[in-house]
Amino acid sequence: MTTFFEDFSVGDEAEFGSYDVTEAEIREFAESYDPQWFHTDPERAEAESMYGGIIASGWHTTAMTMRMLVDEFLSETAALGAKGVDELRWRRPVRPGETLSVRTEILETTPETERRGLVRVRITTANGDGEEVCSMVALTMFARREGGEGEN
Amino acid sequence: MTTFFEDFSVGDEAEFGSYDVTEAEIREFAESYDPQWFHTDPERAEAESMYGGIIASGWHTTAMTMRMLVDEFLSETAALGAKGVDELRWRRPVRPGETLSVRTEILETTPETERRGLVRVRITTANGDGEEVCSMVALTMFARREGGEGEN
Repeated sequence: MTTFFEDFSVGDEAEFGSYDVTEAEIREFAESYDPQWFHTDPERAEAESMYGGIIASGWHTTAMTMRMLVDEFLSETAALGAKGVDELRWRRPVRPGETLSVRTEILETTPETERRGLVRVRITTANGDGEEVCSMVALTMFARREGGEGEN
Repeated sequence: MTTFFEDFSVGDEAEFGSYDVTEAEIREFAESYDPQWFHTDPERAEAESMYGGIIASGWHTTAMTMRMLVDEFLSETAALGAKGVDELRWRRPVRPGETLSVRTEILETTPETERRGLVRVRITTANGDGEEVCSMVALTMFARREGGEGEN
């Protein structure tokens, strides 16, 4: 069953996902998109970095978070893409061997046109110790039910 | 020559980068991190999407932007990573065949500890027609010159 704009309510929460972070994937993402040495060079990162070892690019962390969101949240919805993100914060380093999960909370729902509405969602990514590694507020568009006219 | 925190001044601007967006890379990124059909399925996207064709994941756009930033901005600096990003907006779809470039503007510089400072940078990504496709304000940390005590 597809979830439409009207099916979201402020305060709804969900928790899901289990993404195993590997050194190989950290380095592969970084070689393509963020080739800074503390993401690509484990020896130098251990010797010189303020993080004490290789860490994932923040953009890799948001990408892994997105994968969990698509697999377990967006895929059964009438999602139309996102306008943007506010208050994106990388709060803790993400290291090889960690397992990430996601928590979502609906903050606001706003009808925009007859066809779609905007949902503000707080998205929090945690590591296996339950520590927040990343958080953001996403502005996500969802289709409205056909003929749906209910304003909320 | 390495650029340290003290070398940034409010108002500094730069423009650089030339990233060719291909359908193959859009689909490859999306298959890994954002497998929504309007990023992975060109036929369905052309027939059904409000964008009229396949478009890059917003997280792919930020990743491509990051690659240009690392290659032409961060790589010669004492960058220490970023705390986060404010006001990230995906303003226009990014399509196969476009060429992206980046503009940066230094908004604020704040010493944080003896060793590092925070630089707020407006980052704007444009397509080949000069249209903004993405913008954000990044909170980026840079090392201070050794023994540097100048507060600005």
